[in-house]
Amino acid sequence: MKAQAGPADIQRVCQRIEALGFKAHIIPGEQRTAIGITGNSGPIDAAEFEDLPNVAEAIRVSKPYKLVSRETKPGNTIVSVNGVPVGGEKIVLCGGPCSVESRAQILESARAVKAGSGQLLRGGAYKPRTSPYSFQGLGEEGLRYLAEARDQTGLGIVTEAIDVETFDLVESYADCVQIGARNMQNFSLLRRAGRSRKPVLLKRGISATLEEFLMAAEYILSEGNYNVILCERGVRTFADHTRNTLDLSVVPAVQSLSHLPIIVDPSHGTGKRDKVLPMSLAAIASGASGLIVEMHPTPERALSDGYQSLDPVQFAELADECRAIAELLASRRRVTAEA
Amino acid sequence: MKAQAGPADIQRVCQRIEALGFKAHIIPGEQRTAIGITGNSGPIDAAEFEDLPNVAEAIRVSKPYKLVSRETKPGNTIVSVNGVPVGGEKIVLCGGPCSVESRAQILESARAVKAGSGQLLRGGAYKPRTSPYSFQGLGEEGLRYLAEARDQTGLGIVTEAIDVETFDLVESYADCVQIGARNMQNFSLLRRAGRSRKPVLLKRGISATLEEFLMAAEYILSEGNYNVILCERGVRTFADHTRNTLDLSVVPAVQSLSHLPIIVDPSHGTGKRDKVLPMSLAAIASGASGLIVEMHPTPERALSDGYQSLDPVQFAELADECRAIAELLASRRRVTAEA
Amino acid sequence: MKAQAGPADIQRVCQRIEALGFKAHIIPGEQRTAIGITGNSGPIDAAEFEDLPNVAEAIRVSKPYKLVSRETKPGNTIVSVNGVPVGGEKIVLCGGPCSVESRAQILESARAVKAGSGQLLRGGAYKPRTSPYSFQGLGEEGLRYLAEARDQTGLGIVTEAIDVETFDLVESYADCVQIGARNMQNFSLLRRAGRSRKPVLLKRGISATLEEFLMAAEYILSEGNYNVILCERGVRTFADHTRNTLDLSVVPAVQSLSHLPIIVDPSHGTGKRDKVLPMSLAAIASGASGLIVEMHPTPERALSDGYQSLDPVQFAELADECRAIAELLASRRRVTAEA
Amino acid sequence: MKAQAGPADIQRVCQRIEALGFKAHIIPGEQRTAIGITGNSGPIDAAEFEDLPNVAEAIRVSKPYKLVSRETKPGNTIVSVNGVPVGGEKIVLCGGPCSVESRAQILESARAVKAGSGQLLRGGAYKPRTSPYSFQGLGEEGLRYLAEARDQTGLGIVTEAIDVETFDLVESYADCVQIGARNMQNFSLLRRAGRSRKPVLLKRGISATLEEFLMAAEYILSEGNYNVILCERGVRTFADHTRNTLDLSVVPAVQSLSHLPIIVDPSHGTGKRDKVLPMSLAAIASGASGLIVEMHPTPERALSDGYQSLDPVQFAELADECRAIAELLASRRRVTAEA
Repeated sequence: MKAQAGPADIQRVCQRIEALGFKAHIIPGEQRTAIGITGNSGPIDAAEFEDLPNVAEAIRVSKPYKLVSRETKPGNTIVSVNGVPVGGEKIVLCGGPCSVESRAQILESARAVKAGSGQLLRGGAYKPRTSPYSFQGLGEEGLRYLAEARDQTGLGIVTEAIDVETFDLVESYADCVQIGARNMQNFSLLRRAGRSRKPVLLKRGISATLEEFLMAAEYILSEGNYNVILCERGVRTFADHTRNTLDLSVVPAVQSLSHLPIIVDPSHGTGKRDKVLPMSLAAIASGASGLIVEMHPTPERALSDGYQSLDPVQFAELADECRAIAELLASRRRVTAEA
Repeated sequence: MKAQAGPADIQRVCQRIEALGFKAHIIPGEQRTAIGITGNSGPIDAAEFEDLPNVAEAIRVSKPYKLVSRETKPGNTIVSVNGVPVGGEKIVLCGGPCSVESRAQILESARAVKAGSGQLLRGGAYKPRTSPYSFQGLGEEGLRYLAEARDQTGLGIVTEAIDVETFDLVESYADCVQIGARNMQNFSLLRRAGRSRKPVLLKRGISATLEEFLMAAEYILSEGNYNVILCERGVRTFADHTRNTLDLSVVPAVQSLSHLPIIVDPSHGTGKRDKVLPMSLAAIASGASGLIVEMHPTPERALSDGYQSLDPVQFAELADECRAIAELLASRRRVTAEA
Repeated sequence: MKAQAGPADIQRVCQRIEALGFKAHIIPGEQRTAIGITGNSGPIDAAEFEDLPNVAEAIRVSKPYKLVSRETKPGNTIVSVNGVPVGGEKIVLCGGPCSVESRAQILESARAVKAGSGQLLRGGAYKPRTSPYSFQGLGEEGLRYLAEARDQTGLGIVTEAIDVETFDLVESYADCVQIGARNMQNFSLLRRAGRSRKPVLLKRGISATLEEFLMAAEYILSEGNYNVILCERGVRTFADHTRNTLDLSVVPAVQSLSHLPIIVDPSHGTGKRDKVLPMSLAAIASGASGLIVEMHPTPERALSDGYQSLDPVQFAELADECRAIAELLASRRRVTAEA
Repeated sequence: MKAQAGPADIQRVCQRIEALGFKAHIIPGEQRTAIGITGNSGPIDAAEFEDLPNVAEAIRVSKPYKLVSRETKPGNTIVSVNGVPVGGEKIVLCGGPCSVESRAQILESARAVKAGSGQLLRGGAYKPRTSPYSFQGLGEEGLRYLAEARDQTGLGIVTEAIDVETFDLVESYADCVQIGARNMQNFSLLRRAGRSRKPVLLKRGISATLEEFLMAAEYILSEGNYNVILCERGVRTFADHTRNTLDLSVVPAVQSLSHLPIIVDPSHGTGKRDKVLPMSLAAIASGASGLIVEMHPTPERALSDGYQSLDPVQFAELADECRAIAELLASRRRVTAEA
C-alpha cells in the first residue's frame, strides 16, 4: 500500500482478496502496510488489485515462503516484547537461567539481568529433555515465579512452550513465547503459536536449512501472528570443540531474505562458558538484533546447562561490550547514511 | 525373572518396586520376562529383589536409556503388527504411497503391495509438510480409506500421527502408529504414543545421534508401551548425490544396544528411485528386520515424493530379492547355530 | 568406435584429435574402444570425427568429468590387479593389516588372506598419520616384505603412496597403488598416479562430494592411466556410533555416472570390528565390486587400527558370506538377463 | 626458561636434550624462551632439566600436540611477515585476488590493497583446482608479478604452495607461504614447510577437527619452523545458504589451546560477496588476529571466485570498519588490564 493509505483502503483490498477465495494478511510496517495473500494455488493477476485506491504495487513473491519474505514487506519488522523493541536500531539482551529452579533463583536471576542492563528475562518452566527421567521443569509454578520476577523488575518474560496442551498456560504468563529448536518443525505447535497474540521467538532447528527455518516462521505468520523473532542457536556438525557450531552467517542471510528480526543464542551455540563472550561480540558485529544468553546466579549449582551459563558479573561485562560494538556500528552506519 | 516365573512371582516383584515408590515395567520376552524399574533417582540395592522367588538377577543398567537397553532384556523384542511379527526370523515389507490421495489410489496401492508379497500398507493421512501451503493430507477421510484397504486385503496399516490432537483418531484406525523423523523429539507426542496400546514405528530424526534415538524410544517405553519398532531413514550430511545419507551402520549398532527391532526406509533414505533397490538389499544384508518403501500405482502422478516412489512391478522385484537375501543369511546362521 | 574398428581406425581418430591441438585418450573396453578428448576449451563439432571410418558416434560429455563418465564409455571398466579382475562379475576381496609392522606379521597376514580366499593383500609401508610423532611405516623395508609375501602366496599387493617423492619406490613394488582419503585432492600426487602404469585405488575423501570424487579420478585418467578403482571408506558426519559414516549409496551413484569399478572399505568406514561384517554384506548387496578389509593376525597387538581389524577366522567368514550374497545376486541377474 | 636466561643457558638445555637422544626446539617469546622436546617415546624425568641454570620449570605437555600447545609456550606467538606482525595488538589485513591473472591485474590489486590500508597481498600462482581442465595458475610468471607488486607497494606477499616440487620456487618469492585447506593433511608438504625459513599460513581443512588442525601445525613446528599462522576458512556442513559454514568459535578455541595466531578467511568461509563484510566484522569481534580477503579490481571479470570477491571500494570500507572494532576492543581490554 502507499504510505497515505488509510484503513478503508486496506479493508477494500482485503475484501477483494477474500472475494477471490483467498486469505488476506495485514502486516503493518513503520511507514507502509503490506497485505499478503495466501491460499491461492497459482499466480493471481496483479491487475486485480492495482486499480484499487492507494495500492502501490502488486508483487509476485518468488520464494516458497511468502509472508516472511522481504519481497512482501521491504522494511524491517520490529517486534515489541513488553515494550522492548526487537529488530530496531538498538540491540536487545535477554538473559537468565536455562530452567526456573526456584522462586529465589529466578528472582535473583532477574535482578542480575536488570543490574547487567538486560531487558528481557529468559527461563524455562517446561523443559524438553532428551531423557524422560531428567528434570522436566516446574510447570505453572515456574511461570508464576517468572511473573513475579517481571513484577519486581519490569523485565519482559521469554519462556518456552513445548506443546499445544500447555500453550495456553505459557501464553497467559509470557511476554514472548519461545519455540525451541527441537520443535522448529512441530507444525501443530507452530500453528498454535500463529494464533497467539503474543510475540514468538522461533529457534532454528539443529539441522535446519535457512529455507526450512523461514518456512517454519511462515507457518506462524500464515495463521495471523506477524510478531516473530528468529534465533540462531548453533547447528550440528562434525566439529567437536563446541557443543554446536554457531552459524553466524545465517544472520545476514536472514536479513537479506526476510523482514523478521534475528537474534543469537551463544550459550547453546557454543555450549562452553568461555566461548560465550567472544561469540556474543561476533554475533552483534555480524548484525544480529540481540542475544539470548544463559546466566545463572551460581552456575556451578545449576540443574541444567551450568557449564555454559555465565555468572552475573560476566553477563554485565558481555552486555557492556556488546552495546559498545552495536553503538560503534550504528554510528558508522548513520554517518554513511547521512553522507 | 527365571523362565519358570509365574504371574504371582512377577506381581510380587512389581509390588516391591512400587512399595519403594518407583514404577515397574513388565516387558515380556519369548522365554523370560524382564521387569524394568524407573522413577528412581539413584542406584537401588540389588538385594531388595534378589531374595524374591524366581528372580534370576537384578542388573544395574549402565546406559541413560533403561527400558530399551539389552541390559534390561537380553532377547529380541518381536512386535506384532496386525498379526505380522516384526523383529523375528523373517523380514517384513511395508509398502505404499507417501500420502493417501484418494480411495482409488490407496486401494490400488494395497492390492499392489499384496500382490508384491508385502505384509503392511503405509500411507499418510496427516502429513507434516515444510510449507503451510502444501497438501496436508486427507485427514480422517484418508484413515477411512486405509481401513477399507485393510478390509479388502488383510494388510496391516502403518500411518503417521503428527500431533497429540489427532492421535486418538489415528490410533483408532492404525495397526501401527508412525512417529515421523521431525517429531522424534516431540516429547509430548512420544508420551502420548507411550500410552497407546498400538505398536509404534519411531523414525530416527534427521540429525539424531544413536543415543538420542534410543532415548526417544525410552520416552515411549517409559509410559508403558513396549511395542516400538525403530526405523533408520537417512541423516543429513554434506553429501548431495542422495536426498539424505542412509546410515545403515545404525542397524547393527541398535541391535547390539537394544532389544527393539529396527527396519529401514530406503525411499526417504535416498530420495531417488534408482537407489531404492540397491539400498534395500544393503539394508537387509546389514541385518535390518524389514523395510518401509514408498510405492505408488503411478509414481509420476503422485502428489508428493513421486520421484522416490517405486511402481508396483519394481516393488515386487524388490520384495523378491530382499527375501532371497534374508533367507540366504538366515539359513547360514541356522547352520552356524547348529554346528 | 564401432566394434569392428581396428588399430588403424583408432589411430586415425587420434591423429585428427591431435591435429586440432587436443589430447586423445584411448580407453579400451570389452567390446568397443572409446576415445576421449581433453584439452579443448569449448565444444567441438561432432562432424570432425563422424566421417572417419568405424567411428560409431561423437558424443558431447555433459558432466565436468569427461573420461570417467559413462557417457564417454558406456561399458564397465574392468581393472586387472596382478591378474585379478576388479569390476567384473565376481567380487574381489583385499585383506591385510593397516601397516606392515614386520616380516613375520605380513607373511602371516598374507597366508591368512590366502586361506580366507582373499585375492589381494593390503598393508601400508608409508602411513599418513595425524601426529608427526606416530609410527610412520617401515618404508622400503615394508615394501620388500610385501613383495616377499606376494612371492610366497601369489596375492597381488595393494599399498599406499603418500607423496610424489616416494611414488617411484611404491610403484616399483605394488600391483596397485593406493591414494588415501587425505590425498584425494592432492592433485600433484593424482597427476603422478596418472603417469603410472600400475592400477590405482582411489579412496573417497572424508568430506568429498560425489562430483569431487569423480573429478579426482579424472585427474588420473587425464594423464593417461585408465585403470582406476574407486573406494568408499566412510564420510565425516555428526554421527558418533561409528568412526565415520559409511555412505553405501555412493556405490550405485558411481555406477550410474561412471564406468569405473567401486569397492568399499568397511574397516575405516565403521571403525569398529563388530560392524565390519554386517556392513561388508551390505556393501556387496548394494552392488560393490569388492571390499578392502583390515585383517591382522593378532588384532590386539596391532600398532594401528587394531580395534577395527578382523582376525583371520573372522576374515574367512566374511569372505564366505560376501561371496554367497554376490553369487545369489549374480545368478538372479543372469536369470533376468536371459528372460 | 627464566626471563634472564642467556644463549649459553639455552644451549646448555639443548645439549642435555640432545644428549638424551631427543630433539630440542627453541621457540622464542617476547619475554621468555621456551624449549620444546620431541622424539621421546614416553615421559622424561623433569629433574633432568630443572637443575640447569635459569630453567624456570619443566612441564609435561598433556595434549597430542606439543610444540603448538600453550602449555609449552604460554605467551602469544607473533609472526612477522615482511615486517608486519601477525598475532599482536593490531589486526592484519591481507587482500588480493584468488589467482594472479596478469601483471596488470595483480599490480592494480596491490595498489587497491595498499589504498585500502591492507598490509599484505594475496594471490595464487599455483592453484589447486577440482578439475584438471580448469585454469591452474600462471606459475613462476605469477610469482614474478607478485614480487613486482611488492616492490611497487611494499606489501608482503602471501601465496600458496601446492606441492613439494614447486615449494622452493614459491618460497623464494613469498613472504609467507600458504598451505591450502585441501593440503592440510598433506604431511610431506607440511614437513617441507617446516624446513622453510619463511612464515607459513596454514588453512583449516574443510572437515578438520580442531585437534587435527593443531596436529597439522605441529608437523610444521616439529621440523623447526615456529612461524605458523592458522586460518579458519569455513567447514563443510549441510547448510546451503553459504558455500561453507564459517566456524568462528574455532578462533577462541585455538587461542585457549595454542600460542599461534589465528586469522579468518571470510571469502571462502561464506562464498558470497554480500556476506563477507558482516562475517569479517564478526571475525574481528571474536578475537581473530586478522583477515585474508579476496579482492579483485573487477570482480565480474575474475577467472575464479569472482562471486565472492570484493571490489576495491568494498575492501577499503571493510578495512575501516574492522579496524574500528579492533581498536574499540583493544582499548577496552587495556582499560580492564590497567584497572
